[in-house]
Amino acid sequence: MEKFAVLGCGVVGSGVVELFEKNKALIEKRCGKSLEMAYILDLRDFPDRPYGNKVVKDINVILNDPDVKVVAECMGGLKPAFTFVKSCLEAGKSVATSNKELVAAKGDILLKTAKEHDCNFFFEASVGGAIPIIRPLHKCLAANDFSAIAGILNGTTNFILNKMIKENMDFSTALALAQEKGYAEKDPTADVEGHDACRKICILSSLAFGKHVYPESVHTKGIREVELKDVELCNQLGYTIKLIARVQRLENGKILPTVMPMAVEEDNLLSQVNGVYNAVMVRGDGISKAMFYGRGAGKFPTASAVLGDMIEEVQLEHTIPSQTWENVNSTDFIEDFSVFSAKRYFRTTSADISALSEVFGELQERTVSTEEETVFITENALNFTEVENAVKALAKKGINVLAEYPILVS
Amino acid sequence: MEKFAVLGCGVVGSGVVELFEKNKALIEKRCGKSLEMAYILDLRDFPDRPYGNKVVKDINVILNDPDVKVVAECMGGLKPAFTFVKSCLEAGKSVATSNKELVAAKGDILLKTAKEHDCNFFFEASVGGAIPIIRPLHKCLAANDFSAIAGILNGTTNFILNKMIKENMDFSTALALAQEKGYAEKDPTADVEGHDACRKICILSSLAFGKHVYPESVHTKGIREVELKDVELCNQLGYTIKLIARVQRLENGKILPTVMPMAVEEDNLLSQVNGVYNAVMVRGDGISKAMFYGRGAGKFPTASAVLGDMIEEVQLEHTIPSQTWENVNSTDFIEDFSVFSAKRYFRTTSADISALSEVFGELQERTVSTEEETVFITENALNFTEVENAVKALAKKGINVLAEYPILVS
Repeated sequence: MEKFAVLGCGVVGSGVVELFEKNKALIEKRCGKSLEMAYILDLRDFPDRPYGNKVVKDINVILNDPDVKVVAECMGGLKPAFTFVKSCLEAGKSVATSNKELVAAKGDILLKTAKEHDCNFFFEASVGGAIPIIRPLHKCLAANDFSAIAGILNGTTNFILNKMIKENMDFSTALALAQEKGYAEKDPTADVEGHDACRKICILSSLAFGKHVYPESVHTKGIREVELKDVELCNQLGYTIKLIARVQRLENGKILPTVMPMAVEEDNLLSQVNGVYNAVMVRGDGISKAMFYGRGAGKFPTASAVLGDMIEEVQLEHTIPSQTWENVNSTDFIEDFSVFSAKRYFRTTSADISALSEVFGELQERTVSTEEETVFITENALNFTEVENAVKALAKKGINVLAEYPILVS
Repeated sequence: MEKFAVLGCGVVGSGVVELFEKNKALIEKRCGKSLEMAYILDLRDFPDRPYGNKVVKDINVILNDPDVKVVAECMGGLKPAFTFVKSCLEAGKSVATSNKELVAAKGDILLKTAKEHDCNFFFEASVGGAIPIIRPLHKCLAANDFSAIAGILNGTTNFILNKMIKENMDFSTALALAQEKGYAEKDPTADVEGHDACRKICILSSLAFGKHVYPESVHTKGIREVELKDVELCNQLGYTIKLIARVQRLENGKILPTVMPMAVEEDNLLSQVNGVYNAVMVRGDGISKAMFYGRGAGKFPTASAVLGDMIEEVQLEHTIPSQTWENVNSTDFIEDFSVFSAKRYFRTTSADISALSEVFGELQERTVSTEEETVFITENALNFTEVENAVKALAKKGINVLAEYPILVS
């Protein structure tokens, strides 16, 4: 008999307990062991729930029970999650977390602690909710030299953009609807400004390239400024605006992680990911490309990922070597955003194609001009400085740039 | 230092050796061990290749080397692959195979042998080529009670159908093109008749539901009879005809595996899987649904999956309990195809909607009628007997059924 414990009985934590109890017989058969959900740590009481008698208030109850092999951390935030998780690992208990803030901020430390105590720090649930991505990346694809990862990693912003695209809602109305449906928090900053997606691309970048990438190193731009007009016009040109979290490895060996709204061509599967769904596209030299798709959040989808980690742990004996990265105390391996280069969608005041071509060279055939505005896609990739120069050159011709989005290549 | 060996130096086998040598440093870092590709078993010699000196002709060289921990089986077919793999497992050497015929026919025996000798029989590469699906299914999603799996599991037929849809090629022309490009064998039977997809859905069904499903138990229909006309008309109604390998769990607890051309609604991501790509949609009570997408075949994509298994094995100590199924010496758990029920696409000779409604009840709004033919989607699901009865009832009204496809629900 091996015991599980859960820290935090909120949405995800209660999901872990309930999904485990529902499928207990199946889970025990699959991993060949008897299992017990022994403790739930929470400051609140849950007398009306079937697992109410398992609630404890003191982490030491869990730390001191030698039969607890795996602990799920579903508290969120850094305090006291970090201290609790570290204590569990130091006690030789493996931890499975859904807390992306914790992994993005402290993953290197916790992975090191786990290794020192011959246990594991798991975080499948921290990226993409139900989507298996962490284990596929470091196990199934372990023979690949990765070149890029691009994903829709935040369901709230994808829901909002989707409503703008499909139902012509403006940003504020779509955000209010997301809040009404419980997809967005009252304070939607972490989602809308891209911080949540940023934490997730930090985790994927760290795992794929082996060095801890902190959120501060990532150029992050959210969707608050996305105008309905650009969503519609971009669509007319055959592109969909999505909040894309991405990392690419450059020819100089450095990596460039970014989070920003990008225009995704309609024959790219990422453009077809609707509603609160998430998806991650991975490029490597063996696989060419692979994509993973599923529910990016929610009680049972996230619980499924946490339990998947817990179930693996009870089948294991030691730390998994491939699921790790190191803190190199440097950001030298991360390229500056200024070199980021891509073809671009532009919306300008009404302009002659000839005047635009003088600035940008050839344009793609996809160009729409009305009396008031012109939208087009450049044929050449432009970096940040080149965009700035183009804006100035256009201004001299009396043409103002009203919006600009990079085109995703993935 | 742990040693790898490869059985068979064809397309996949040579890919395993070449991808390993290319990314050796990265792979060793990830799994924390020194590794050597020590032997390649083949009847041929490869004097011009850099690994020519590793070729051996006798399986005993590999069996008798105690440092060989993992063997890749990339020979294909059952003879001598089955005997060789079984001998390796009996010698305590784990095996990673890309051979779906072997897994579908002998998986139960080989998994049992592996367990008896405390090693592993891996087969990530046997389904979906590069796509991580086996490990996600039994590890990441181990907390889920599965209800259905549906996939595009054969790249050749997907390429052919895609050419029919996108370029109005008829079946024969598209097949000839697939052969020219090397996607289809000279004898394309296994692909075109659905046998290859059948083996793969057997493997996924066995793993998801725990009991060995043999190919003989699966209703299998290929794409040879798919007419260009139906591909086009179906598309007009908002559906794409795909060869779908599927298993569903019914309310009576039995499972129903099928391989057949089905009409897939255009907002289902499976309808967007083009060319030689594969994809698998999984439904479970925790995740709701998740999809996995990537290259279904090819030298390096398949090699990536084989190596992923080999790299996991050198990090492991024992047999993985969750990656298995049993032979129950029965097919009682498999439902008869006659109960399979779905909404249907029909193409008939020209018909009044009122005459059709008398037979089918309500029809979906998606109906196209010309002077010669009528195509429509039924609102109600029909099983095989109900389809037969409907065909008879229509015949009495002077209406002939020219084509019929079930609609995928996934």
